[in-house]
Amino acid sequence: MAHNRRRNIVRYALELAYEGTRYYGWQSQSVGNTVQQAIEEALEKVTRQYLPVMGCGRTDTGVHAKNYFLHFDWDAQPDERFIFRLNNALPRDIAVYRIFPVTDKFHARFSAVSRKYEYHIITQPDPFSRDWAYFRYGELNLEKMDEACQYLLTCRDFKSFSKSRTDVKTYNCDLMECRWEKSSDRLIFHVRADRFLRNMVRAMVGTMLDIGSGKLTLSELPELMQAGDRSNAGTSVPAKGLYLTEVNYPWDKFLRDE
Amino acid sequence: MAHNRRRNIVRYALELAYEGTRYYGWQSQSVGNTVQQAIEEALEKVTRQYLPVMGCGRTDTGVHAKNYFLHFDWDAQPDERFIFRLNNALPRDIAVYRIFPVTDKFHARFSAVSRKYEYHIITQPDPFSRDWAYFRYGELNLEKMDEACQYLLTCRDFKSFSKSRTDVKTYNCDLMECRWEKSSDRLIFHVRADRFLRNMVRAMVGTMLDIGSGKLTLSELPELMQAGDRSNAGTSVPAKGLYLTEVNYPWDKFLRDE
Repeated sequence: MAHNRRRNIVRYALELAYEGTRYYGWQSQSVGNTVQQAIEEALEKVTRQYLPVMGCGRTDTGVHAKNYFLHFDWDAQPDERFIFRLNNALPRDIAVYRIFPVTDKFHARFSAVSRKYEYHIITQPDPFSRDWAYFRYGELNLEKMDEACQYLLTCRDFKSFSKSRTDVKTYNCDLMECRWEKSSDRLIFHVRADRFLRNMVRAMVGTMLDIGSGKLTLSELPELMQAGDRSNAGTSVPAKGLYLTEVNYPWDKFLRDE
Repeated sequence: MAHNRRRNIVRYALELAYEGTRYYGWQSQSVGNTVQQAIEEALEKVTRQYLPVMGCGRTDTGVHAKNYFLHFDWDAQPDERFIFRLNNALPRDIAVYRIFPVTDKFHARFSAVSRKYEYHIITQPDPFSRDWAYFRYGELNLEKMDEACQYLLTCRDFKSFSKSRTDVKTYNCDLMECRWEKSSDRLIFHVRADRFLRNMVRAMVGTMLDIGSGKLTLSELPELMQAGDRSNAGTSVPAKGLYLTEVNYPWDKFLRDE
């Protein structure tokens, strides 16, 4: 019987987005409202089962996700109105877009081959971006910040940008994209890698802002990277400017017929 | 002495933006938090004087302004840090951008030659737009809504879209722009006119959504417009999707040397 039941369990991938201001991140070490909790509660309302979910990554307190995937195992099938009902059960700062069956080998966290983040900086106050971008006053030398990106693309070990208390075995990251974009009202940092260390993007941005403002010179960057000491790098910029914007999977390996 | 003092009074125009969610509009008839009040309080902190301000228009409860002008008279001069200090004194959902001296003939409300509004509709839930767009579920025939715009551009009397209790003498408006734009994640209605009646844009949008959803036919629109009865038109859409985006003045008439 247990065996039979087991056979009917299907793994589902869920695509979603959230505005992280109110949350202690995806999954909290300490007590507090987390995105994972909010989703599990809504899922329980809709399915009438407690279904633990596994997210694609642990975003920090206040960080946003424009694109996020999780997986969960379920012995029933979502009907047509599942997404509609789940959105109704969710708080308005979380929205789900798609649910689809995947093979048992799919793992939201470990199957991802790359992730992309954006960091948004506004240079004048904007009431429509106040919790969704970092407002920074003062001139920046964007050319030097671009040069810093070129250098960072040649690096492999990012220990200098990592939280000291972390349980990772290596600090190696394969950076695929690392650039600044200037739009009419903001500066956007784009970074894509196979993996990210805790706090890495915010420390990278803080260090590049030090280069842009002249507090740190470009020639000091290689030494800083080689030292592998977080305390040498720039101050982390606030979480509210950070967005997880893409999570990439080799879907052809994991998709199932619906 | 009073005469001397009078001569030093200069009229200033202030350019700003606000996110209207928390406010009972620009200026409230009843009790409540208004944008005007918040600005007068911040201005008093910075100038140490109570300086009443005159806005370019009375936006309703919950309506946003990406571009807004006000004027006030002051017997002192703003220094370089005035905008910076005023922004620090203001709540984060209001931001000021520029202050500049204008001639005494300038009036933020009566000197404007046209205003532009946008109405934002999203067709899937978006945690980053939850208070800044109207989420509407269901299919819309955009072609018919475009045709409705073409018809509305030929109209002059907009009484059918006006609140019944209003103190205006005429319902004539000169529409200069009236169109729908479809972007990747939203529908945006653009409308520009020399003046707008209370609730007019939201009633126009509601009526066009009725046309887009098939609840109202295009052929019924002329009759509805000619009847001049608000109760025949569509339901007003929510304030949170409405933005005042442009206020246009013949600046060459009003600018002074700083």
